[in-house]
Order: sequence, then structure tokens, then C-alpha cells
Amino acid sequence: INSKLPDVGTTIFTTVGQLAKAHNAINLSQGFPNFEPDPELLALVSKAMRDGHNQYAPMGGLPALREVIASKIKSLHQRTYDPEKEITITVGASQAIFTAITAFIGKGDEVIVFKPAYDCYEPAIVVNGGIPVGIQLNKADYKIDWNHFRSKITPKTKMVIINTPHNPSGTILAKDDMLELQKSLAHTNIIVISDEVYEHIVFDGHDHESVSRFDDLAARSLICSSFGKTFHVTGWKVGYCVAPAALMHEFRKIHQFNVFCVDHPIQHALATYLQQPRHYLSLNAFYQEKRDYFLNALKGSKFTAIPAQGTYFQLLGFANVSNEDDITFAKRLIVEHQLASIPISVFNMNGQDHKVLRFCFAKTHDTLERATEILQRI
Amino acid sequence: INSKLPDVGTTIFTTVGQLAKAHNAINLSQGFPNFEPDPELLALVSKAMRDGHNQYAPMGGLPALREVIASKIKSLHQRTYDPEKEITITVGASQAIFTAITAFIGKGDEVIVFKPAYDCYEPAIVVNGGIPVGIQLNKADYKIDWNHFRSKITPKTKMVIINTPHNPSGTILAKDDMLELQKSLAHTNIIVISDEVYEHIVFDGHDHESVSRFDDLAARSLICSSFGKTFHVTGWKVGYCVAPAALMHEFRKIHQFNVFCVDHPIQHALATYLQQPRHYLSLNAFYQEKRDYFLNALKGSKFTAIPAQGTYFQLLGFANVSNEDDITFAKRLIVEHQLASIPISVFNMNGQDHKVLRFCFAKTHDTLERATEILQRI
Ligand SMILES: CSCCC(=O)C(=O)O
Ligand SMILES: CSCCC(=O)C(=O)O
Repeated sequence: INSKLPDVGTTIFTTVGQLAKAHNAINLSQGFPNFEPDPELLALVSKAMRDGHNQYAPMGGLPALREVIASKIKSLHQRTYDPEKEITITVGASQAIFTAITAFIGKGDEVIVFKPAYDCYEPAIVVNGGIPVGIQLNKADYKIDWNHFRSKITPKTKMVIINTPHNPSGTILAKDDMLELQKSLAHTNIIVISDEVYEHIVFDGHDHESVSRFDDLAARSLICSSFGKTFHVTGWKVGYCVAPAALMHEFRKIHQFNVFCVDHPIQHALATYLQQPRHYLSLNAFYQEKRDYFLNALKGSKFTAIPAQGTYFQLLGFANVSNEDDITFAKRLIVEHQLASIPISVFNMNGQDHKVLRFCFAKTHDTLERATEILQRI
Repeated sequence: INSKLPDVGTTIFTTVGQLAKAHNAINLSQGFPNFEPDPELLALVSKAMRDGHNQYAPMGGLPALREVIASKIKSLHQRTYDPEKEITITVGASQAIFTAITAFIGKGDEVIVFKPAYDCYEPAIVVNGGIPVGIQLNKADYKIDWNHFRSKITPKTKMVIINTPHNPSGTILAKDDMLELQKSLAHTNIIVISDEVYEHIVFDGHDHESVSRFDDLAARSLICSSFGKTFHVTGWKVGYCVAPAALMHEFRKIHQFNVFCVDHPIQHALATYLQQPRHYLSLNAFYQEKRDYFLNALKGSKFTAIPAQGTYFQLLGFANVSNEDDITFAKRLIVEHQLASIPISVFNMNGQDHKVLRFCFAKTHDTLERATEILQRI
């Protein structure tokens, strides 16, 4: 068998998850909440099943759900997308991203990816014959050096993947960053995938700068997002992709033969649930409170932190605690201290080790309390 | 934009479905039931949500569900698959098939597809740079000419896709067919995708001859199946793929970056529901009764039929009714007679027209009665 992905092993999330389980560790590794979603949302899914929405949904998604997504984007970012032709419901953001890459990337196409990067971008590029071109974010603050970025654009550059708020660093792209990106891509045909799965988790009064706010970016971008992240249901696997009609037309050609459509009762439930903007607008404060709780509880510990500006991840530097590499240290944290996190070297260029671990704070206070007690003791 | 699938338009299912809706037609086109699934199954999903199974499932699928699938295969086909390494839960059979093709097909690889074929195979091959090699089934009985098949195998043949029970023809592959296939592939490295989504819908005492029954076939096959078809929930998008560990290893490399995992509460519900074999063993009789009802009600009409041996589709020849091509006639049936079906030329080699339409009989008696009354009148 000739492997199309000879270098791909098991994802870090599966590996760490299994180790955490084996050692009965508190699990702040993989990004998912350890609390329950709104019972109202569960009841809506049950109702949709009882109401008989159990057969195929339309290929592009339930019209009512696409319409409410369009309204949300219009009100938050002042851009109008046509629900019929420019919004597709997907099996989580993963399938949106894989499908978008598959639709546009072919042999020899270069795709710029900022590192550290969530681990699904590069394999999807490679499977399609493309070439991932990594750009390492600044080590100190995870900002993008836009001059460096421009120097990496070649005639073969077909796509750039951005991610704001950014997993794993917790940074966000500011308006200035978006303008730099927009300027850099002017007069090119480069397509942008904008991974905005944490769009509703932004702190300290910052604003989520969606690509949809910038005319020339929006015209070349596929935005991928996730209801799993927003409504605490990562296991329901529903997200969406938004793009101008010409891009969406090609996206759907892949989508219809990949999954054809997405869970129908859940789409009905979300169409109703999204009609209350407070269901997603309350998320910033909800998670900011958790971030603050986590950081406060770590005061006086030997771990160093730049507070996350978004996402539900907090990076902690451990250089004052150990000079092991991050993978060794992360393992030891699980095995000896029963606390699981993600070593972020696995997401960096060439596995660079910055002695930083990623902790997911989408957890109950009780869990965060026990986790921070462990970190205080080390 | 360079399209990877320049020739792909909207699927026939979307096109006919929209026309049917516009004309308020009885819809026997797309393959889905118009009756409700077992309330017990719905209750199990609601319970799984309330029990807190709302975050990511394991990448390969819920272990309990994989185990019960392994038991089912063991008891029906006497083959042992390792649930841990050889079974993966997928977003319906569509995603299983797309993923399997993506895992193994690259530039210039030839894939043999029997025509008429369900419409998702060929685009997936083309997207991956492969070359679909069509073989038309016999017009009279939709059987495979195995000598013709062997003449189509070249050094570039990487894969064969079979489908039994067969959509759209309703035929099944007999044990002799499977032995011919097995013999033809001996001493090659050709991989088989076996689309067995209608595995539990076989009539007249025939037995479903899964590739898993044949040692040398099983060793090279990825079996794709669907709970949507079996439990009347096509809109839940859950299926599975079964293959020897070496093949499954490559399959999962794509799966994990395509969708990562599948709806978690539904997997819990299915794991429980599948423990009662009658839930799927009763399906043969259930759908045979519908097939018989449909065919009996057509006695004396001008349409001709070879009874379907499996699936929930019945082909009807209309040569005695009209000499229009099948697309024109199918449209007229919708517009003038408010009855929707699928013209199968769209699935044939070069759009060959055999003057045959496909009708889905996964419908209530009331619907089948009204549909057959229309057909009797024509
Ligand atoms: C699909 S598993 C990963 C979940 C996640 O987004 C993360 O932990 O980074
Ligand atoms: C995914 S839409 C098609 C459903 C089906 O299996 C058919 O109608 O052939």
C-alpha cells in the first residue's frame, strides 16, 4: 500500500487523551467542555426528531438555518451573504476545511499556514498534492510578521489559511492585521480559508475581526465555523462554511460527494436556537470568567502566561519549572501529576520547542480548581 | 477558478426533488422513507444527550458501537473484525466511500465502476486524479459479464467498486458472482470498495453475499454501510466502514482530518439499539411486503418490471407507454401526473437510455397506492 500520508500518525489529541485516561488525569488537553450544553438545545433536537425531520436534509443545509446564519453575519459584520448560494452547513469546521482545501488545491499548489497551526490543515493540503508553506509566528507574542509573510508569496501560492481567534496561542488578529493581509493579497488570485471556530469567544472587549468585514478579503475567503465550539456540543459535529457564490459553487461539488448533507434534526434545533442572539453573544463573558479564574488561581506559581485574548485555550510557559522538552514535560504532568495538556511543539515549524503547554479552560470551576492546585504545587 | 470537477452539476436527487416539490408531486425519487423511525431509537438519542454524551466521540467511533457491528458481521458472515483497528464509524456511507477513494486513489489510477452506478463514486475518483473505467451491466438483467470485466483489468487498475444489493437496479450479486470477482482479482493488488448499504434489504429468501464471506475478497475490501438506510434515518448521517487493519489504517488517516469523528449521542443510541438483531433482521420482510404491494398494484398497467431482489428501489420499463427519452418522460410524470421518479440514464455509461425509471418504494401504503393509481392511469 502506497500511503498518501506516510508521515501521519495518530493525532496528538488521541494520544494524549488515551494517556490521560490511563492515568486518570484531569484532562485539559483536547478542546471540549466538560459541562453540559443548554437543556433547551437538547430539547429542540428531541423535538425535531419527534416532529419527523429524520430524513436527508437539503445538500446545502436546512434553509432556515442558513438564513439565521446570514442574519447573524449581517448584524455582527455588516456583510450580506445569500443563504441559498453562499452558506453551506457542514459536519463541523473540520469537514468544511477539508472540503475547502480539496476543492481548490491541486498538485504543486502552495498553501501558506501560520505555525503553530491546528493539525488538520497540512494533511489536507498534502493529500491533494499541495505544498504547505509554514510561517512561524513570533515566539514572544504569536503575532504575524507581515513583511515575512509577503516574502513567502510566490506565483504558486494558491491559498492562505488564517485562524482567528487562534488555536493554540489564544491570540486574535487585529484590524491592522486584517488590513495587512488584505493589502498583501491585492492583485493576486490567492484564496483565503479563515478558520473562525472561536468567533464568539473573544475577551477584554476586543472585537472579532472576521474576514467578512473586509471587502477585498471577503471576496476571496471561505469562512469556516463550528456550532460545536459555540454551543458546547463538540460531539454533534455541525458547523458551516460561508463564501462568495463562485467559491461556494466549487466547495459544494466536493461537499455533495463527501458527506452529501448534515444531521437534519440538529439543523432544525439550531435554526430555532440561533434566533436568540444572547445564546452566542453571552459566550465572551462566560469564557472570560473562566480564563480569569484560571489565571488568578495560578498567581504565584512558577508558570508564565500571556492572557489569552480569545479561544478557550491558555498557553503556559514552563521554563522556570523544568528544562525538559515540552513533550516529555507534558507526559510527566500526566503520569506523575494526573494533569493533561497539549505540548505545542507538535504544532510548530519543525517541532520547535518553546517550552509551552496549552491548557483548555472550557471546564467547570471544580476542574479548573483542581488543575491549578496541581500547577501551583509544581 | 480552476474547477476540479468541471462537469459536475447539481445531483439528479436535488434537481428532481426540487421539481417534485414545485409540482406537489408524490416523491418516489430520492431513496428515503416517508415514514418515521422507531420511537425507541429516537428516545435512545434523547437519552444519550441527557446522559451527557455531547462532546467528541473517539476518532474511530464509539467502542461499544464498533463492538456490536463486529458481532453482527461475525454472526451473519462468520468473519471476525477487530473493532479497535478494523471498524470506523462514518458520516453515512457517502463519507466512507469518499474517504476510502481518497485514501487509495491517486493520479492515473484506474477504478472499475459498474454502470448504472450511484452518482458519488466517479466524482470522488476524478477529484483524486483517478480514472473511472465504466462497465455497463447487461441491459436485460443488470448482471455482470465477468469475462468483459476481466478484459478491463490493466496494470493501472487500482480499485473496483461493487454495490450489492444494487442501486438503482435492485439486483444482487450471487455467490457465483462473488467467486468470479475473487478469482478475477487473485494475484493482483486491486482494492475493492463494497457498497453494502442495502445489506439488510434482500428479498425472496435470497441471502446477502457480503464480500466479508470470501477470504481473498475480504482481505482486499473496504465495506461501506449505512444506518440511515437500515433504521429509516437517512438524515442522521451515520454509517460505517469495515476493512482489514492495513487498509483501515490508511482510511483513518483521511477520516481523522476530514470529519475527525461522528455524532456522539447517535452512536450511543445505535450501540444499544443494535443489540437487538430483530431491529435489522426484520427489514427484509418489511420491505418485501412493500415491494410486493407496489408490484401487485401495477398488475395490468403498461409498465414492465423485473421484481427487485434487494434495495428499496423498483425499476419500471416504460417503452410500452412512451417513446420519449427517460429524462423527458420522468419530467412529464412530475409535471403532468405529479409523480416523481429517477431516470436512470443519468447513471448509465454515456447516458444510455433504456427507457427505465427508478421508483423508491420505502413509502407508506397510502403513498404507494396513490402512486400506482397514477401509473395505472397512464
Ligand atoms: C478534533 S480534536 C481537537 C479539538 C480542538 O479543537 C483542539 O483541541 O485543538
Ligand atoms: C444521498 S441522496 C441519494 C439517496 C439514495 O441513495 C438514492 O436515491 O439513490
